[in-house]
Amino acid sequence: MQIDNNIHTGVLSLGESRIPNPLRKGTKEGERFFFSDEKKILIDIDAGRIAEMMREGQEPAAFELAGPREMIYFDPSKLRCALVTCGGLCPGLNGIIRSIVLELYYGYGVRNIYGIRFGLQGFIPRYRHDVVELSPGAVSDIIRKGGSFLGSSRGPQDVNEIVDSMERMNIGMLFMIGGDGTLMAASKIADAILERNLKISVLGIPKTIDNDIYMVSRSFGFDTAVDVATQSIRAAHNEARGYPNGVGLIKLMGRHSGFIAATASLAQQDVNFVLIPEVDFDLEGTGGFLEKLEKRLADSGHAVIVVAEGAGQTFFEVSAKRDESGNIRLQDIGVFLKENIVKYFKEKGTDISLKYIDPSYNIRSLPANSNDHVFCSFLGRNAVHAAMAGKTKVLVGHWNNHFVHVPMSASAGKRKQINPQGRLWQSVLEATGQGSLKKQGKV
Amino acid sequence: MQIDNNIHTGVLSLGESRIPNPLRKGTKEGERFFFSDEKKILIDIDAGRIAEMMREGQEPAAFELAGPREMIYFDPSKLRCALVTCGGLCPGLNGIIRSIVLELYYGYGVRNIYGIRFGLQGFIPRYRHDVVELSPGAVSDIIRKGGSFLGSSRGPQDVNEIVDSMERMNIGMLFMIGGDGTLMAASKIADAILERNLKISVLGIPKTIDNDIYMVSRSFGFDTAVDVATQSIRAAHNEARGYPNGVGLIKLMGRHSGFIAATASLAQQDVNFVLIPEVDFDLEGTGGFLEKLEKRLADSGHAVIVVAEGAGQTFFEVSAKRDESGNIRLQDIGVFLKENIVKYFKEKGTDISLKYIDPSYNIRSLPANSNDHVFCSFLGRNAVHAAMAGKTKVLVGHWNNHFVHVPMSASAGKRKQINPQGRLWQSVLEATGQGSLKKQGKV
Amino acid sequence: MQIDNNIHTGVLSLGESRIPNPLRKGTKEGERFFFSDEKKILIDIDAGRIAEMMREGQEPAAFELAGPREMIYFDPSKLRCALVTCGGLCPGLNGIIRSIVLELYYGYGVRNIYGIRFGLQGFIPRYRHDVVELSPGAVSDIIRKGGSFLGSSRGPQDVNEIVDSMERMNIGMLFMIGGDGTLMAASKIADAILERNLKISVLGIPKTIDNDIYMVSRSFGFDTAVDVATQSIRAAHNEARGYPNGVGLIKLMGRHSGFIAATASLAQQDVNFVLIPEVDFDLEGTGGFLEKLEKRLADSGHAVIVVAEGAGQTFFEVSAKRDESGNIRLQDIGVFLKENIVKYFKEKGTDISLKYIDPSYNIRSLPANSNDHVFCSFLGRNAVHAAMAGKTKVLVGHWNNHFVHVPMSASAGKRKQINPQGRLWQSVLEATGQGSLKKQGKV
Amino acid sequence: MQIDNNIHTGVLSLGESRIPNPLRKGTKEGERFFFSDEKKILIDIDAGRIAEMMREGQEPAAFELAGPREMIYFDPSKLRCALVTCGGLCPGLNGIIRSIVLELYYGYGVRNIYGIRFGLQGFIPRYRHDVVELSPGAVSDIIRKGGSFLGSSRGPQDVNEIVDSMERMNIGMLFMIGGDGTLMAASKIADAILERNLKISVLGIPKTIDNDIYMVSRSFGFDTAVDVATQSIRAAHNEARGYPNGVGLIKLMGRHSGFIAATASLAQQDVNFVLIPEVDFDLEGTGGFLEKLEKRLADSGHAVIVVAEGAGQTFFEVSAKRDESGNIRLQDIGVFLKENIVKYFKEKGTDISLKYIDPSYNIRSLPANSNDHVFCSFLGRNAVHAAMAGKTKVLVGHWNNHFVHVPMSASAGKRKQINPQGRLWQSVLEATGQGSLKKQGKV
Repeated sequence: MQIDNNIHTGVLSLGESRIPNPLRKGTKEGERFFFSDEKKILIDIDAGRIAEMMREGQEPAAFELAGPREMIYFDPSKLRCALVTCGGLCPGLNGIIRSIVLELYYGYGVRNIYGIRFGLQGFIPRYRHDVVELSPGAVSDIIRKGGSFLGSSRGPQDVNEIVDSMERMNIGMLFMIGGDGTLMAASKIADAILERNLKISVLGIPKTIDNDIYMVSRSFGFDTAVDVATQSIRAAHNEARGYPNGVGLIKLMGRHSGFIAATASLAQQDVNFVLIPEVDFDLEGTGGFLEKLEKRLADSGHAVIVVAEGAGQTFFEVSAKRDESGNIRLQDIGVFLKENIVKYFKEKGTDISLKYIDPSYNIRSLPANSNDHVFCSFLGRNAVHAAMAGKTKVLVGHWNNHFVHVPMSASAGKRKQINPQGRLWQSVLEATGQGSLKKQGKV
Repeated sequence: MQIDNNIHTGVLSLGESRIPNPLRKGTKEGERFFFSDEKKILIDIDAGRIAEMMREGQEPAAFELAGPREMIYFDPSKLRCALVTCGGLCPGLNGIIRSIVLELYYGYGVRNIYGIRFGLQGFIPRYRHDVVELSPGAVSDIIRKGGSFLGSSRGPQDVNEIVDSMERMNIGMLFMIGGDGTLMAASKIADAILERNLKISVLGIPKTIDNDIYMVSRSFGFDTAVDVATQSIRAAHNEARGYPNGVGLIKLMGRHSGFIAATASLAQQDVNFVLIPEVDFDLEGTGGFLEKLEKRLADSGHAVIVVAEGAGQTFFEVSAKRDESGNIRLQDIGVFLKENIVKYFKEKGTDISLKYIDPSYNIRSLPANSNDHVFCSFLGRNAVHAAMAGKTKVLVGHWNNHFVHVPMSASAGKRKQINPQGRLWQSVLEATGQGSLKKQGKV
Repeated sequence: MQIDNNIHTGVLSLGESRIPNPLRKGTKEGERFFFSDEKKILIDIDAGRIAEMMREGQEPAAFELAGPREMIYFDPSKLRCALVTCGGLCPGLNGIIRSIVLELYYGYGVRNIYGIRFGLQGFIPRYRHDVVELSPGAVSDIIRKGGSFLGSSRGPQDVNEIVDSMERMNIGMLFMIGGDGTLMAASKIADAILERNLKISVLGIPKTIDNDIYMVSRSFGFDTAVDVATQSIRAAHNEARGYPNGVGLIKLMGRHSGFIAATASLAQQDVNFVLIPEVDFDLEGTGGFLEKLEKRLADSGHAVIVVAEGAGQTFFEVSAKRDESGNIRLQDIGVFLKENIVKYFKEKGTDISLKYIDPSYNIRSLPANSNDHVFCSFLGRNAVHAAMAGKTKVLVGHWNNHFVHVPMSASAGKRKQINPQGRLWQSVLEATGQGSLKKQGKV
Repeated sequence: MQIDNNIHTGVLSLGESRIPNPLRKGTKEGERFFFSDEKKILIDIDAGRIAEMMREGQEPAAFELAGPREMIYFDPSKLRCALVTCGGLCPGLNGIIRSIVLELYYGYGVRNIYGIRFGLQGFIPRYRHDVVELSPGAVSDIIRKGGSFLGSSRGPQDVNEIVDSMERMNIGMLFMIGGDGTLMAASKIADAILERNLKISVLGIPKTIDNDIYMVSRSFGFDTAVDVATQSIRAAHNEARGYPNGVGLIKLMGRHSGFIAATASLAQQDVNFVLIPEVDFDLEGTGGFLEKLEKRLADSGHAVIVVAEGAGQTFFEVSAKRDESGNIRLQDIGVFLKENIVKYFKEKGTDISLKYIDPSYNIRSLPANSNDHVFCSFLGRNAVHAAMAGKTKVLVGHWNNHFVHVPMSASAGKRKQINPQGRLWQSVLEATGQGSLKKQGKV
């Protein structure tokens, strides 16, 4: 990812008054440690670039470290908190819900925690969704299940109605777990709150199974998605090897970035072609995908292809269709490829045996693996620490191996993508040997 | 299943001359036990029916028990064996290949074992598929992989060409692992062999992930299929619960019988509707599926539907299309249901969130679970014992909890189906509460 | 297993008055099917033995088929039911609890279902364990967890106190899930109930991860145990192959029978020695275990040994120690073997690398796999059907592939063991090639 | 971890002559990207400390980025490479072997790749271990298996004999995969090579399931270990909840650092006490472990304890015993705790039900999960890139989310440990609520 060193990384706070952090209660001297807001980590860690900036007197951009603060803003005994999950399902939602509840309850002593049902709809009276009271008992076993314990929904709701609803419920802290659209909504909600001069902290936890949140190196659920996606790749590989001229074609998630496709291909290393949104390819022509596939079959008798759902959109006329969340509806590249491969070999008179696998819903609805459980645990606890300290309009993210506060403004509206010159894509090229899939004469 | 007590259950033998079974070699007195051909188990075990038959002087039908015989027909030191896997992939193929090879090699001392590649194509010279030499080393790790170590293909090949090929290779024993079509081919091959007066044993191991082989209570891979299918049901359930009016629709394998659909629904018990080929249902009308689905959504806010691929074929005009294996091409009931559900609620003005999951290739290509490994191990070893004893035109099956010899003639051309009056389907009715899905006035 | 054809297989009923089964309610003509008590399946299905008995005018023993009866004894609207789980944990306990609750609630309309906590202790006032109210909501997600939702305990409690407690709670139906000791207690409780002329049905569901319940061909959790045990065998195999003269030694459950050890060895087929309680072996001497192990290491450089916990008890002096459940405390054969192997090779001056794995608690505490979920679902539902029909002193078991009613008297106090002449053990001999491990001169 | 900014991070190179990297062959302009040695990332990324160093004119320490270089040192067509795995098993060994072989073979065109069997023993003639020829075919399926495809052994071998052996085999590149001891041996081997003025590159890939390699933020296999360890924690939790006063005690790996224990506890969050080497605790006394455990049982009726194998060594008298690899033999803290807990409650007259689980061999011998597969793939490929570029005495490590070259001298002889003031341990304190386990009056 290209890193913009001029990025603004200040974070908002709701006010100045502070009370001591109750985490220290009952512990011995020297047992509990807090982080100050001054503790920051560099965003860009390229030694050469940093040295140059320093020589030129610029201060390199840095993120605040997440973690508990010695003094907090809210009084836990009077605080009412709300959690909401929005958009598509993603492994780990329940882990985040659980760790937020556990930290609020046991860490800070908050007793009024409400789950908003079915995404932002839950705030809007006309949908009549009940609110769920959350406590350690209610969430103790939810991590063994996939999906969202609170339910979700797509699409925006009126910001003022949402804030009205929070005022009525006397909410002091809102945790929003959702994707790009949700985080933009979170930003607007936080703005409306500040305009009304309310003291409500809005914390975002970025959810994107595609791993494409800008300024966030890893998002929860991604690791599980890769884990499960490799099952499908193994299945496709078995189908491909199982028949003369066998072709296994797997469509994986990734609307705008190919992280799942590329990473899962490296886990399994049985993949011969990886097609992602960031790297164009041609179907026809010398050096194009179909010709290379033909060559691969001639040489080895079978082939495995992984395609990210957002790849090859240039083959389709731009359609203006958008779904309820405002996402552009993509044409189905998986089905398109399948049909074109079958047609190509039919015309050549070559019998092939193509199997098409689309495991998307199987992946996003399953429970998180242990690694993601740990990750979600940190995200949830750190979101609570940030909110208790009075931070708002902030995401809890992961950067250079640390949990950090990312201002919503720094991330919103941009996307992380695979850098074709970086090690991830270059490793895919090494592992697949696919080379360029552009026809000759094109670059 | 209706059991035909008049079934002919004799099994063919290639000849009379016998040599001692080498399994006894190097063992102590009383350590090795052999089964005689006289050892049989009843097919029908209904106490009342058996008593009545006895009273009437009829002899109830029985299967020969599988297992090693004291005297065998073939001379292991001169024997050359061939294995072939045909048709669609199924968990456990590699387990059977492995156990056949291990038993031939270590148990009987056979040293010439050949794997025929890509199904029956491997016998036909013009396909130019090499033969694979099989030994314990070659197969030691294959059970960890799905698919078929030997490859497979669909469709028939000329029986005479196949027998010619076996003559050229001097094969004395052929193990054919495949579905209904394959077993019919096996039967024809065995007939041709007997006509030519060759001494080649043809053993079948029935493969059907759908578990629909007649006179075989359980087929390998079925247990794994149910195991993996429940993952998809869980995912569908999470998707359904995750959204207002969420509907999870899963299509599972089962062209002519709903065993996977029914059994996986009992494993998970989160399913509200199970649709199988054996039980008709109506879409429209009072008491029909769509109305009941609407009621379920109104009551509970979500629903999970499992449909076997062969269900509801009455909704389609009969098409005469057949695939390469001669199977009738079914219309896609999953897509059909999905479209009709969406249309129905759109017309009613009800927002629903339907997710459609079709995990078929993910299931059939994965490795077998431990239970199926054990089962495959028994099937493979018993197939070897039967063939060494000179049996031919025989399947190794499982009946009333015993491994038995099933004459190919007893099974071929018929299918096992779910009995709507039996405990399996009645348990599904208890677990789902779905009741009849026929519209009123119809039965 | 030796089958006793003189076994008494009648089952007790509480009384004669009957009401129609509510399962039929709201269903169409011909949709619901019931089984009559006359429907029985043969216990012994050996065709020759049955024919001989018939000729001699004897009636072969048979089990009543489980399943719903057309007329039932209890009035669901007035019925209060209790469930209790006793003894060691076993995968599937929660599946049985769930299916009993679902069938009682949805199938028969029972609304008062109580979970007795921590085994029989839960009946005894001085332990002060609360009773848990059970409903579909309470049990909907418990199958994803291992252990027992109700808790368990070892050891007997006073039968009269238990029956007093049930009288006080006005219980009409008791489901006892437990092992040999529990089923004997169940028998005594049922006797005490009949003596007091109470109308309480006592149903047993046999629990034994070792699969050693007499007259029950398969017990729940066994399949999961084999599944998980193979992980340990794989680990042991990797450790063994990983070092010069590597030895992997795994102790598996099986106090009196080696079913888990034998079956898991067949799943994996990387095992060289299987030691079980049913087959004696010698450590020392020509042809003894240690000499054969030495030979195996010399030939192949590594070895994998699976030992059931009850094997080789002849090496220990009989100790009279018993645990709280009255089971004889076994000496630890795993540690004993480990020490003897190490000592033997030390004396020979051979470096070996032995790794000892004891996965017991890891196995019995995990959730059931899909196969066991299905099995538990049938056991639980059939237990409810039997109890509703007024049966008592009955186990729900599995025999010849059918769910049946086994009179407690037919099973209690005996154990199922591996028949050394049967196919299971003979297959183990074929798979391992271990032969006899008795020293020469002994048989 | 405390970071030493004065660390020397230069890396050794074998010589100056260079040839073009063949990775570019057959690719289009702009498709392949190489990294220069000038590309470095900061080791310490604390924004404040870096700014201060810069102000004081110091250059912050940095690691070279791993990856392919434009010009390489070795001629692939003449190169002979060797791989060796040493010490204990660890998930991912086979993934690293495979990715090294694939990159050497397909990426650089190397055809002579040798696997040294059973660790450093494989170099020493008197052990007579054969060498394994490695090719893509030989390693294609090994990642599905745990253990080491090459085998391993513990303990040092004579450095000169090893180098003699490499000279005889004409090896140009040695990949050593092993723990602390192995990396020290690697360093000595590299020194001996440089002394003899040989042109042999020695690359290390640090292996430590405990994740305690200094200057390496994550080591392969750790993620899998946490994954599998959580199974045991779940089992222990089920056992603990399953009985009155149930105690589940799990011993996890971690000789000198508690990373597995701490991380697995965060994955599961059902743990009440985590005991690690880095944080002292008392057994007896007010505020000590046993008293707190008693309080926990009184409050909640059950408790789960995770102990790292290296915890609480202060309870034992220092023993001077060391194993073959020179590691100090630790006393068994798991058994010690078990005995002390049982004794404590026996004296108090409280019945408890303690279950002790030690899953170590089950964990280290299993195959890696997908996440570790990806990680191993990067490690292996980057090791090849480094070696081809002529680097030697270098580890391939992971730091601040990048793959880097770590000079062996920077890492050897030091260990990474959990910082009790850092977020990992503080999160464990939040998750368990265990507080200090030192008796009052002690700090």
